Amino acid sequence: MAAHFALLIDPAAPDDLRDDFAATFTALDPSAPALSVSELSTQRGDGIFESIGVVDGHPQEVAAHLERLAHSAALCDLPAPHLGQWRQAVERAAAACGAGESVIKLILSRGVEHGPAPTAWATAARAADNTGVRERGIRVVLLDRGIDSGAADRAPWLLLGAKTLSYAVNMAAIREAHRRGADDAVFVSSDGILLEAPTASLILQLGERFVTPAVGSGILHGTTQISVFEHVAAQGHPTAYEIVPAEKLRTVDAAWLVSSVRLAAPITAVDGVGIPTDRELTASLNRYLLSPRD
Amino acid sequence: MAAHFALLIDPAAPDDLRDDFAATFTALDPSAPALSVSELSTQRGDGIFESIGVVDGHPQEVAAHLERLAHSAALCDLPAPHLGQWRQAVERAAAACGAGESVIKLILSRGVEHGPAPTAWATAARAADNTGVRERGIRVVLLDRGIDSGAADRAPWLLLGAKTLSYAVNMAAIREAHRRGADDAVFVSSDGILLEAPTASLILQLGERFVTPAVGSGILHGTTQISVFEHVAAQGHPTAYEIVPAEKLRTVDAAWLVSSVRLAAPITAVDGVGIPTDRELTASLNRYLLSPRD
Repeated sequence: MAAHFALLIDPAAPDDLRDDFAATFTALDPSAPALSVSELSTQRGDGIFESIGVVDGHPQEVAAHLERLAHSAALCDLPAPHLGQWRQAVERAAAACGAGESVIKLILSRGVEHGPAPTAWATAARAADNTGVRERGIRVVLLDRGIDSGAADRAPWLLLGAKTLSYAVNMAAIREAHRRGADDAVFVSSDGILLEAPTASLILQLGERFVTPAVGSGILHGTTQISVFEHVAAQGHPTAYEIVPAEKLRTVDAAWLVSSVRLAAPITAVDGVGIPTDRELTASLNRYLLSPRD
Repeated sequence: MAAHFALLIDPAAPDDLRDDFAATFTALDPSAPALSVSELSTQRGDGIFESIGVVDGHPQEVAAHLERLAHSAALCDLPAPHLGQWRQAVERAAAACGAGESVIKLILSRGVEHGPAPTAWATAARAADNTGVRERGIRVVLLDRGIDSGAADRAPWLLLGAKTLSYAVNMAAIREAHRRGADDAVFVSSDGILLEAPTASLILQLGERFVTPAVGSGILHGTTQISVFEHVAAQGHPTAYEIVPAEKLRTVDAAWLVSSVRLAAPITAVDGVGIPTDRELTASLNRYLLSPRD
C-alpha cells in the first residue's frame, strides 16, 4: 500500500536535545516531492533500511530493528544512528497507524552528493493482506547467490551482513521466482549452502529442532527469526544456527520464510516438489508473531 | 560538483510524439525536493543509470551509453527506454553545460512503489578536475568480488552486466581502497580473474597488445574502454577481450582504469607495488578521450 505517513529525520541533530527530538523531525506528505535528485540513496542505493511490522498500532521488536540499523550503519561507514531519536520517530509513525497491520520503514541514506550529512526518513503504510499466504503457504525456488559461503568473512566490503538500499538483485530474484511459477526464492551459496530469501529469513524444522542458516555465511540476522527462536525455545524445542546444505530443504519436517510483515509463510514446495507443512504449528507461530512483542 | 541542471522525463509518454519530446520533460530545480519517499530507486536501488562525459558542451559517445541503458533495462525487466526521447534529454542537458568538462547522469527507476510507471530523470553537473589524476595516476588494491567468474552466465538475476542503482558495494570497495592507502580498487573474482573497478573498466597493455577482461565474466561493457580500443586499433595495436588472471596486473607494460568522466587514469601501483606507466601514451589517450566522440 502507499505510505500514509512520512517524517524527515535530521540525523545530524545535536546530542543536547536529550530525549525530545521533535525539533529534528519534519512532517512530509508521503506522495509529494521530498528528496532531491542528488540523493545518494537514489543514485547509488547508498544507505540502509529497516522494515518494522506494526499490529494494532504496536511496533514489533523495535529494539532488535534499531540494533540492526546501527549494525548496518557500522558496516557501511555511516554515522551511528542516535537510537533514542529513531525510537521516537518509530513511535510517531506507529501513532499514525491505527488498527490492523501496518509497516514502518526507516531509511538512513548517505545524503545528498557532496552534501554535509546523511538524510533520513521514516514512513508508515498499511500492510498488504498476508492472511492468505500465511495459511496457503508459498512455493520457492532455489537460486544461486553467486557468492561462496566464505565471502562475507573474507570480503566485508561486499556488505553481506548489512541491510542496504542496494536491493536490485533481491528484487530480480523474486521476479525470477515468479517466472518459474513460484512465489519466492531461497538463495544458495555457490558452494551449495542455504542462505536466506531476498526479503526473509529461512527456518527449517528437523524433528524437534528448529534450524536457521548460520549468520556468519553472509546473510542478515533476521529480527523475526530471532523472535521465533525465542518462542519455540520457550516451548522446549532446541534451536540452532547451522551450515545447512541446500538438499536439506527437501527433507525437512516443515520450513518457513519469516519476515517482519509477511510473518511466518510456510514453504509448500521447493523447485516444484512438495515438502511437508504443519498447519497447526504455522497458525500458532503467526498468532505469536501477531501478539505484541518488544 | 552539485548538479546545476535537472530534467524529469516521463518514460511512459506515448509514441505518437514522433521526434518532439518537449511535452514529456519537466524542468527541475536540482537542489529542490523532486522525488517522493516512495521512489523504488531510493528504497531499493531498483533502477539503472548512465554517466556521460561532456566536453565543451559535447556529450561523448551518446549512442553507446543509450545502447547500454537499453541493455540494462532488459536485464532488469524495465520497459525499453525510448532512445529518441533520451537522446533529446541528453541534448537538453548538454546545452546547459558550457565550456570545460561536465557529466550528465541518466536515471531510469522502477518508479514509485505500487505506482503505474517508471520514473526517469537526467542531471548535469560540472565534473571534478581530473587533470592531476590523469597525469599522476592512481594506486589500486585488488579486492575480492565474492562471485566466481562463471556466476554471471549461471545466475542472470545477479544483474552483473546491468548498470543498476544498487552501487552500495561499489562505494564500499572504494572506501576500503582508501583505508588501505590506495585511490581505487580492482575487483577480482573468487577464482582469481580480473574483473573491473567499482566505477571504471580495466585496460592492460601487454607488449603491443591492449587487453581488457572478457565481458562474459559478469562485468559492465565500458563505453570508454570500447572507445579506447577503437582508437588504439586504428593505430595498429591488436586488442582483445580475455580472461586475465589477477597476477597478470603486476607484469603489464602499462595499465589504466578508464571511465566516462575521469577518462584514462594510469595505474601506478597494485597493492603497494609499483607497475610501469607510459606517460606519453597516457597523455595521448586522454587527448583522444577529450576530443569530440560520437
